[in-house]
Amino acid sequence: MISREKHDRMANAIRFLSMDAVEKANSGHPGLPMGAADVATVLFSRYLKFDPKAPLWADRDRFVLSAGHGSMLLYSLLYLTGYEDMTIEDIKQFRQLGSKTAGHPEYGHASGIETTTGPLGQGIGNAVGMAIAERKLEEEFGSDLQNHFTYVLCGDGCLMEGISHEAIALAGHLKLSKLVLFWDNNNITIDGAVSLSDSTDQIARFKAVHWNTIEVDGHDPEQIAAAIEAAQKSDRPTFIACKTTIGFGAPNKAGTHKVHGSPLGAEEIAATRKALNWESPAFETPADVLDAWRAAGTRSVDARKAWEGRLAATETTKKSEFTRRFAGELVGNFDEAIDAYKKKLAENPPTVATRKASEDALEVINGILPETLGGSADLTPSNNTKTSQMKSITPTDFSGRYMHWGIREHGMAAAMNGVALHGGLIPYSGGFMIFSDYCRPSIRLAALMGIRVIHVLTHDSIGVGEDGPTHEPVEHMAALRAIPNLLMFRPADAVETAECWQLALESQHRPSGLALTRQNLAPARLEYVAENLSALGAYELISTADAKVSIFASGSEVELAVKAAAELKGKGIAARVVSVPCVELFDEQSDEYKKSVLGTAPVKIGVEAAVRQGWDQFIGADGTFIGMRSFGASGPAKDLFKHFGITVEAIVAAAEAKVS
Amino acid sequence: MISREKHDRMANAIRFLSMDAVEKANSGHPGLPMGAADVATVLFSRYLKFDPKAPLWADRDRFVLSAGHGSMLLYSLLYLTGYEDMTIEDIKQFRQLGSKTAGHPEYGHASGIETTTGPLGQGIGNAVGMAIAERKLEEEFGSDLQNHFTYVLCGDGCLMEGISHEAIALAGHLKLSKLVLFWDNNNITIDGAVSLSDSTDQIARFKAVHWNTIEVDGHDPEQIAAAIEAAQKSDRPTFIACKTTIGFGAPNKAGTHKVHGSPLGAEEIAATRKALNWESPAFETPADVLDAWRAAGTRSVDARKAWEGRLAATETTKKSEFTRRFAGELVGNFDEAIDAYKKKLAENPPTVATRKASEDALEVINGILPETLGGSADLTPSNNTKTSQMKSITPTDFSGRYMHWGIREHGMAAAMNGVALHGGLIPYSGGFMIFSDYCRPSIRLAALMGIRVIHVLTHDSIGVGEDGPTHEPVEHMAALRAIPNLLMFRPADAVETAECWQLALESQHRPSGLALTRQNLAPARLEYVAENLSALGAYELISTADAKVSIFASGSEVELAVKAAAELKGKGIAARVVSVPCVELFDEQSDEYKKSVLGTAPVKIGVEAAVRQGWDQFIGADGTFIGMRSFGASGPAKDLFKHFGITVEAIVAAAEAKVS
Repeated sequence: MISREKHDRMANAIRFLSMDAVEKANSGHPGLPMGAADVATVLFSRYLKFDPKAPLWADRDRFVLSAGHGSMLLYSLLYLTGYEDMTIEDIKQFRQLGSKTAGHPEYGHASGIETTTGPLGQGIGNAVGMAIAERKLEEEFGSDLQNHFTYVLCGDGCLMEGISHEAIALAGHLKLSKLVLFWDNNNITIDGAVSLSDSTDQIARFKAVHWNTIEVDGHDPEQIAAAIEAAQKSDRPTFIACKTTIGFGAPNKAGTHKVHGSPLGAEEIAATRKALNWESPAFETPADVLDAWRAAGTRSVDARKAWEGRLAATETTKKSEFTRRFAGELVGNFDEAIDAYKKKLAENPPTVATRKASEDALEVINGILPETLGGSADLTPSNNTKTSQMKSITPTDFSGRYMHWGIREHGMAAAMNGVALHGGLIPYSGGFMIFSDYCRPSIRLAALMGIRVIHVLTHDSIGVGEDGPTHEPVEHMAALRAIPNLLMFRPADAVETAECWQLALESQHRPSGLALTRQNLAPARLEYVAENLSALGAYELISTADAKVSIFASGSEVELAVKAAAELKGKGIAARVVSVPCVELFDEQSDEYKKSVLGTAPVKIGVEAAVRQGWDQFIGADGTFIGMRSFGASGPAKDLFKHFGITVEAIVAAAEAKVS
Repeated sequence: MISREKHDRMANAIRFLSMDAVEKANSGHPGLPMGAADVATVLFSRYLKFDPKAPLWADRDRFVLSAGHGSMLLYSLLYLTGYEDMTIEDIKQFRQLGSKTAGHPEYGHASGIETTTGPLGQGIGNAVGMAIAERKLEEEFGSDLQNHFTYVLCGDGCLMEGISHEAIALAGHLKLSKLVLFWDNNNITIDGAVSLSDSTDQIARFKAVHWNTIEVDGHDPEQIAAAIEAAQKSDRPTFIACKTTIGFGAPNKAGTHKVHGSPLGAEEIAATRKALNWESPAFETPADVLDAWRAAGTRSVDARKAWEGRLAATETTKKSEFTRRFAGELVGNFDEAIDAYKKKLAENPPTVATRKASEDALEVINGILPETLGGSADLTPSNNTKTSQMKSITPTDFSGRYMHWGIREHGMAAAMNGVALHGGLIPYSGGFMIFSDYCRPSIRLAALMGIRVIHVLTHDSIGVGEDGPTHEPVEHMAALRAIPNLLMFRPADAVETAECWQLALESQHRPSGLALTRQNLAPARLEYVAENLSALGAYELISTADAKVSIFASGSEVELAVKAAAELKGKGIAARVVSVPCVELFDEQSDEYKKSVLGTAPVKIGVEAAVRQGWDQFIGADGTFIGMRSFGASGPAKDLFKHFGITVEAIVAAAEAKVS
C-alpha cells in the first residue's frame, strides 16, 4: 500500500524531472507531465503490468502516451521504474540530437516506448489497434499467453482530432473491454482555454459510442485507483475523465496555457520547489522516492515469471508458433509457396486487374501465414482483400481474421500501426488509393517507426473511370514515394503483384503500399523467373540490342510500354522497356546496376498515369513524360486514357519524334 | 400545399431519373437518390430558398450533398427545378467524359452545384464553413442582405469519417443555428449492414456536441417538413436523422447493399416501375410532375426580387462593398499597399522568421482587406496569424475576424473551402506544415474546385528543431507540389513573403499554401524592386558573368546559397543563385524565361531542407542536391542542419568538387 504522502512524493518526482529537463533543454512541455503525474503514478505504481527488465514481454500491459508532447512524463516513468536504458544522463539529454529522449516519444529510441506519438490523436488509434491485437491473440493462443490491458493517456487535442472519433467508435463497437483511455482534462490548449474552440460533453460523447465512462479528480489517487479497478472489470472500453490542473504545482503558472509548451523559468521552478516542499536539486530524486519507484518497477516480476512458466509449459507447436509470431518471422516455407505460385502463374499468365491479382496472391499468403489480419475501410468488394480463409471479426467473435474497419481510413491506419507494434500479427488494409490522403499521417508514422503494415491501395489512377477526379489519384504515387522509408509498389501484372506482396511481407522494418488497378492488365512477365525481379525496384523487361529508346513505366502503363516497343520495332526503332515496380528499392541498388537499367539509349520516355514528379531520375529533365498534368475526369476509363493522351500511340509518336 | 400523392410522384421523378441515368451509364449509385428522394423533395419543394434563374444569388440557401456518390439526386433536382444549364440531355450524359453530370458533383460543372463532394465527410465540413460565412456576413452586412440556411445531406460514411466529428463539434460550439444536417439513415454501407462496423448512437453523439436533434421517418413528408420547421427555429444547429430505405421502391433490392453502387438492371427497374406505378419511359417526367417541380423552382422568385430591392436600396458604400466582396475582387489599392510595404521593407531589410514576416504582411493586408477571415488550428502564437485587427469570433459574437478552429486541421480546411465557396470572405488558416497531412483531402478539393483558400504552414523544415521528426516536414513540399492547381510558396525573406501573400490573394481561382520558417532568416532581397519577382516562380537573385555554378534554393536555404556563392567567389568560382519561391508559377513561364533561369553553368546544385523529389527539373538527374534523405531528428535546429549536411560548407564543397 502506498500512502498518500508517498504517492505525492512519487508524483512530484515526475514533476521535477519533467520541469527540470524542459528547463535544461530550454524547450518542451512541462504542463502535461506535471498535470498528469498523479494519474501516471497510480497506474504505474499499482496497476500497470510491466517489467523494466523484460520490456518486450509479450503479455505486458501496453501504455501509450497519445499526448506525445508530454514526453517527459514517459521518460520520467521509464527512468524511475528502472528501465536500464533510460538513465538520468538520458533525461539530462532531453531534446538533444542523438539522445533517446526526443522531443516526442520515438519508438525504438528506448525500451518502454511502445509507439511514436506527437501528432495528436494517433496514440488513441494505436491503442485501439493494440487492444484488437490482444483480443485476437487471446482468442488464438488463450488467456494463459495473452491477457493484458492497453492504457492510453490523451489530452484535449487528441479528442478534438477527427481520428479520435474513428478510433473510439470502432473500439466501442468492438467492445474492447481491456482498453482504458485516460483523458487529461485540464481545460487548456495552446490558444488558451478549451472554451475558445470547444464545448463537447466528452462523457456524453463516449457514452454515445458505448464506452464505460468514469469521472475522477485527477489529483486524487484513490479516485484514480477506483476508476482503474472499475475499468478492469468493465465489459466495454473505459473512458476515465481526469480533471487535472495543467502544470500542477507551479504556483503562478499552473492552470494556464503558459505552462503548456514552454520552460517554467528558474524563478517559477524555485517557487514550485517551495510549494511542493521539494528539496532535491535538479535531476536528483530522493532515495526513498526512487526506492519506491524501483519497487513499483519490480511489482510484476512474479507475473512475468509465471507467464514464462506457462509459455514453457505450452505444447511445443503452439509455443513455437507464438514465439515465431512475436519475433515477426515468416513461416519457413513462405518463399517456397510464393515461388510455386509464380510457377503456376507462368503456366497460364492471366489478364487480370492487379487488385484481383492481389486477392489471388493473398489467397496463397493467407493460407500459410495465420498472422495476417486483413481488412478494408468498407470497400471489401472493391479492394479484393477478403480471401477464403478470412472470416469477419465481430464484437462477440474474434476467431476471424478480417476487420470491417468502417469508413475510417485514418482510424484504420493508426490501429494497424498499433496491431503491428503490439506484435504477433501482420495487418494489411484495403482502401481506395485516393483515400491514402485520409490516413497519410498514420502511414507516415509507420514509416518513421519502421513497422510492417501493408496498405492495399486499389483504384490507382484514372483507370477508376466514371467516379471521376475526386476518386482518381494522380499525385498520390508521388506523394507517397516522397515519404522516407515507405515502400510504394506499383506492380504491372499478377507476377509482379505476387513479388511485391512477398517483398512487403518480408520487410519487417518498413511499411508498404501496393498501388493496384481497378482495370484488367495483360501479363507483362510471360516466363517464370525464380528471382524476385521486383526486388530490384526496376528491371529491364524487354531488352534489345542498340536500343534507341528506353521506355520506363510502372503498373498499368507497362502494358502500353510493351505494346509501344513492339510497334516501334515494326517501324525499325529499337526500344527497350523497363518496368519500375518500386522506386525506393531501385534507389538502393548498386550504382552499376542502376546505370545498366537507365541504359544508354538516347531517347528516354517515362509513362505513368500520374504526375511527372520524381520521374526525372529515370528520364532526365529533358526526357519525355507521358502521364497526367492535371486532375482526372469522370468517364469510362478507356475514354480517359485517350483524353489524357496516355496511349500506345502517344508513346510511339513521342519516340519517333525524338529519334528523328 | 403539395398533396401526398403529388409529393410521392415528385419524389418518384427523382428516383426514376436517377436509376435510369445510372442504368444508361452502367455505373453509379442509385441507392441514395432513391432513398433520400422524399427528404430532398420536401426540402426543395417547400423550404429551400433558391432560384434556378439566379443561381448565384448571394442570399440563397446553400444545399450540400455531402454523400456525393448520390450525385444523381442533385442532378435530378437541378433539372427538375429548372436550372437552365441542366437539361435532360445532360442527365443522359451522366458519368460521360466532358459532361456536366460527373460521377460525383463537381463545383463549376453546372449551376447549383455548391461544392465538389464524394470524399466522405467533406460536405459536412463545407457546410459548417458556409454557415460560418453566413453568420459572419449577417453580422457585417445585416440580415437584410445575409440571412439564409445551409442544408447538408450526409450518409453513414460521412458520419463515420473523423472529419465529421471535427465539423460538428465546431458547429455545435459556435451555435450555428442556421445549419441543418440531414442524415440518410439507411443502415447500409458497401460492405453490408452498418452493424458490421459501427453501432454509434448518432442522436446521443450530436447531443454531446450541443446540436438540436430530431428523428423522423425519412419517407414521411409531413414528419420531414415538421423537422425542417423546427430546425429553422432552433438556436442551435439541427441534426435530422431520417430513417430511410436505401433504393426505396426497388422491390427486390431496396434495403440491401446491392442497390448502393451498382445499376439496378433492366429487370429490377421494370419491377420498380410497376411497384411505384410509374408509366413514363426512361428520362421522361410526366408533365404534371415536371410542372410541379418547375413551380417549386419559382417559389423563391419573390424573395429573390425583394432581396434585390433591399440591395438596391442599400447605402452606396455598403452596397458596393457587398458586391465587391461577393465578386471576389480585392480593393483597388491592394497592389499599392503591398508595394508601399515592400518599399518600407527595403529601407531596413529585417532579419526575421518568415512566419513573423507573414504576420507583418498580414498586418498590412488585414488593414485593407476586411474580407480576410484568419484563424489557426490552435497554434495562434506559433503561426503568427492573428494581427491587430483580428478579434476572436465567439459563439455569441461574430463581429471578430479570427477563428479559433481548435485542434481540427481537417475540419478547418474543409470549413475554409465552405467559406470560400459561400463567397464574401477570403479564409486563411494557420497550422504546422507537418499537419497539412491531416487536412490534405480538403486542400486537394480546394485545388480541384479552384477556390481561393490560403494555408499558412509554419515550421516548414527541420528548422522546427527540438520537437523532432514527428513535427518536421521533409516530404511535405514535394507532396503538396504534387497536387495540381495548388500554389505552394516557400518565400526566402520578408519581401518574398509579402509578394507570395500578394500572389495568393490575387489568385482567385487557386488555393495557396505558404511554407514558412520557425527560425530567423537574413534578408535575401536588399534592394526594392517594383516587380513581384516571386510571380516568376524562380528568378536569378545573384547573377554573375561566366557562372560555373548555379545554386537553386527556396525559403530558408536561400540564405545558405547566397553565403555559399560569396564564399565561392572568394575562391575564384563564379556562382549564381536562383531563388525558387514557387515551382508551379515557374512552370507556367515561357520556355525562354525558364531557360534563362536554369542557365548554362555546368554545375547545378539544388538546396532545400526537404527531399529531392521534384528538384531534378532544375538541376537534372546528375545535379547535386543538398537536402534531406530521411526523416529529421530532435535537437536544436542549428545542430540538425549541420547533422544533415545542409550548410554553407556543404554547398561550397559540392560546388568545388564538381567544378574541379
